[in-house]
Amino acid sequence: MTVSIDLGELAKHIGARLEGTTTQQHVSGIASLDRATSEQVSFFSNRAYRTELQKTQAAAVILKDDDRVDCPVAVLIMDNPYLGYARAAAWFNPVPPVVAGIHPSAVVDETAIIAASACVGANAVIEAHVQVGECSVVGPGSWLQTGVIVGQHCRLIAKVSLLTGTCLGNRVWVHPGAVLGADGFGLANDRGVWVKIPQLGGVRIGDDVEIGANTTIDRGALGDTVIEHGVKLDNQIQIAHNVHIGAHTAIAGCVGIAGSAHIGQHCMIAGGVGIVGHIEIVDHVHITGGSVVLQSITQPGVYSSGTPLQTNATWHRNYHRFKQLDELAKRLHVVERKVAQTS
Amino acid sequence: MTVSIDLGELAKHIGARLEGTTTQQHVSGIASLDRATSEQVSFFSNRAYRTELQKTQAAAVILKDDDRVDCPVAVLIMDNPYLGYARAAAWFNPVPPVVAGIHPSAVVDETAIIAASACVGANAVIEAHVQVGECSVVGPGSWLQTGVIVGQHCRLIAKVSLLTGTCLGNRVWVHPGAVLGADGFGLANDRGVWVKIPQLGGVRIGDDVEIGANTTIDRGALGDTVIEHGVKLDNQIQIAHNVHIGAHTAIAGCVGIAGSAHIGQHCMIAGGVGIVGHIEIVDHVHITGGSVVLQSITQPGVYSSGTPLQTNATWHRNYHRFKQLDELAKRLHVVERKVAQTS
Amino acid sequence: MTVSIDLGELAKHIGARLEGTTTQQHVSGIASLDRATSEQVSFFSNRAYRTELQKTQAAAVILKDDDRVDCPVAVLIMDNPYLGYARAAAWFNPVPPVVAGIHPSAVVDETAIIAASACVGANAVIEAHVQVGECSVVGPGSWLQTGVIVGQHCRLIAKVSLLTGTCLGNRVWVHPGAVLGADGFGLANDRGVWVKIPQLGGVRIGDDVEIGANTTIDRGALGDTVIEHGVKLDNQIQIAHNVHIGAHTAIAGCVGIAGSAHIGQHCMIAGGVGIVGHIEIVDHVHITGGSVVLQSITQPGVYSSGTPLQTNATWHRNYHRFKQLDELAKRLHVVERKVAQTS
Repeated sequence: MTVSIDLGELAKHIGARLEGTTTQQHVSGIASLDRATSEQVSFFSNRAYRTELQKTQAAAVILKDDDRVDCPVAVLIMDNPYLGYARAAAWFNPVPPVVAGIHPSAVVDETAIIAASACVGANAVIEAHVQVGECSVVGPGSWLQTGVIVGQHCRLIAKVSLLTGTCLGNRVWVHPGAVLGADGFGLANDRGVWVKIPQLGGVRIGDDVEIGANTTIDRGALGDTVIEHGVKLDNQIQIAHNVHIGAHTAIAGCVGIAGSAHIGQHCMIAGGVGIVGHIEIVDHVHITGGSVVLQSITQPGVYSSGTPLQTNATWHRNYHRFKQLDELAKRLHVVERKVAQTS
Repeated sequence: MTVSIDLGELAKHIGARLEGTTTQQHVSGIASLDRATSEQVSFFSNRAYRTELQKTQAAAVILKDDDRVDCPVAVLIMDNPYLGYARAAAWFNPVPPVVAGIHPSAVVDETAIIAASACVGANAVIEAHVQVGECSVVGPGSWLQTGVIVGQHCRLIAKVSLLTGTCLGNRVWVHPGAVLGADGFGLANDRGVWVKIPQLGGVRIGDDVEIGANTTIDRGALGDTVIEHGVKLDNQIQIAHNVHIGAHTAIAGCVGIAGSAHIGQHCMIAGGVGIVGHIEIVDHVHITGGSVVLQSITQPGVYSSGTPLQTNATWHRNYHRFKQLDELAKRLHVVERKVAQTS
Repeated sequence: MTVSIDLGELAKHIGARLEGTTTQQHVSGIASLDRATSEQVSFFSNRAYRTELQKTQAAAVILKDDDRVDCPVAVLIMDNPYLGYARAAAWFNPVPPVVAGIHPSAVVDETAIIAASACVGANAVIEAHVQVGECSVVGPGSWLQTGVIVGQHCRLIAKVSLLTGTCLGNRVWVHPGAVLGADGFGLANDRGVWVKIPQLGGVRIGDDVEIGANTTIDRGALGDTVIEHGVKLDNQIQIAHNVHIGAHTAIAGCVGIAGSAHIGQHCMIAGGVGIVGHIEIVDHVHITGGSVVLQSITQPGVYSSGTPLQTNATWHRNYHRFKQLDELAKRLHVVERKVAQTS
């Protein structure tokens, strides 16, 4: 099925100003600058692709006013072309409608309350007292343990595990393999032997949250683990018990957040970051890829840790010198004093 | 269902000394210091929460003798209050009993031996010659490949994969999405093309082991991968072929351990640590979060690696200087000699 | 079932030269040097095991000509004994044949095209228009979303998720819990609120690719995510949208690769490495364990980053000095100038 729209309508829909062509020209999709045909739009938001912009054959390009000089075709001008791309792509590729009903192979407890407009896929397992809201999808092979609550317009794509104590808001998307509400890693030590601490809290997920494939979010030990509205989590993230993530924070893949860490709102945490437990990160903090956070962050800003990649031989020399860093600093201080005395 | 106990009984059960109230007072649960009501107990083991201790309304607080002066309510005194918390929480929240039986949707091979007291959940798949011991649970959607052995009182929560060659002891808990016994990453290089090495070993898991959600433990290449008694593994851990983990070692989330590494007993490995293959770590080693271990550790102790988090601009300057570290050290040495000569 | 072969045949099969025994001696398996019996072969490729070589009771040992002096038994001489091990192990342990047929509990859409020689396991779910080629296995609990294409002789071991837009070549192995084709992490920011960017590309997997347990490979945003022929991926790897991995590259566990990174052919990326997005790594690059790659790599070679593990106390002193590294370098420069002036 191809959907098409005229450029005037599209401009209105994405919030852009059309120039360089008539509003009646129809387009039927979006593609990258080098692949877009004369019946597709494209976008320009990363200056590394300026050459592709100059050669594009797209019907029109979504871009900033400053960049129009390099565009050989019609333009859709807006301040945030990447947002224009998101809106146009969503217009051309609407989320498929929910096909209501419960697949005959699904195992649904009779006490579960599944909205009439909801969809339960093949081989899904839904236990007692679960609630699934209107227009939500419980994809194939998903498992909702006793008492789980899923709001409206949610999409559990497939093979999602939601354990007792998990509650999702509305419009929450969860990708395959994600596990929400498994026991946190709570242990007391009894003369060398670990004793399990029962994990009694839940997982509360706000509205408009997206959770990536194979991501895990543990239930709280006593209180809940909380993910506020609009948080976006990529794949293979580990969120430990009693973590709190503020609204509209985005976290990229392979991040690990230890227990009871409190992350602010509107933060951006890049891939592979590790965050220690029992610390606080204020709002509007951006942590770059691969950093390790061992202390609270009390001021907004961009933060980093780590060492540069080098050829192995060069790195090896500097790597070993790191062991002497404190000694080198002290030796420098001694030399400085001696030089000051002699001059 | 609410269970209640009088404080005298609870004190005996957890090994604490009750002071400041009568032993007959009943309590019906455990909560954090700020949330506990006068019918609940709480605990104090982290001094960061002293203010909450001073304001608590709990019936009694489990704490060390030294901390009672700050407690406005009755006290349950013991040397390890965190252990008291674990024991009290377990008393109030016993693990639900196993409901014996095989769900009609489960697919169980006729040669499998499932104990009469065991439970097999919905849509589980159990292949030929599998053995599941008394009172063990094979949760919904789990898959036990041919010949797998599961001991007694195990809990495979749900969606657990155990592949041929995997053998679990007793009282082993495995959380959703964990995969035990998949092929290790064994490859030989034939003039640029990788040739798969058949993975012929198994995975042996001791008693009282807990394995977190989406954790993977590969089968051995020739011998077995071994996890000894009492080991506790958090979520999203990767344990490669032929790794050996000593008894009562605890490993936090997102740790990766490469092939044939041998980890001692009673070690603590914090989140995000990476451990290279073919090394040995002795008993009683503690590795802090985000560290990378490239060599054997021959002495017990606490070990770390990594660089501090800084604002991006500051970090960037130091980050680039790391490339010069060896050169700086050599230049310092030259200056030191010159200064020594002139003075 | 035990298979046996005489040493002359085995030598021919693996490409080795037999010396020190008659070609008629039969062997029935392969084991490590310390465990092999007189009816098994072994191999020697890591010099750390020289003592085990000197004591081995194997029928014959696969090794390099240089190492035969230390071998008390017959030898199978070849330049790459590790490859000999791979070939011998595969001879003794052939991959079990595919048992054709669709398990009655599987849910297979009537428009799906499943080759007659293919096998679909218990509780697998196969949606509309999926194609599964000759002799391929869709293991228990796997889910193939609408339109997925699986080539010939593939093995989806179990619980594999392949989402719409995913296309596998021939002889592709995918281990349990892997998710291919889930949405990439594409977001535009609209005044603080994240807007999802529809992920419209696919995942193209070449021939002879192996993908580890719980590994995730996201579909492309506009174009495809591409894994070329012969690539080997270990467990718990995250590959973001529009990444391109060149042929015969091997990547170990827990690696994360951010969006649109382009990795060359014949690269080796060790465990726990993080690679930032939108960069290019040329062919024949080897990155050591735990390194973080923030820039393109334009020359073949071995690369590393990171700091050494030390006892916590020592590390702490050096860790804090890292914050002063740029200042220390500048102070050294000042001292050098002063010393130069005075001498």
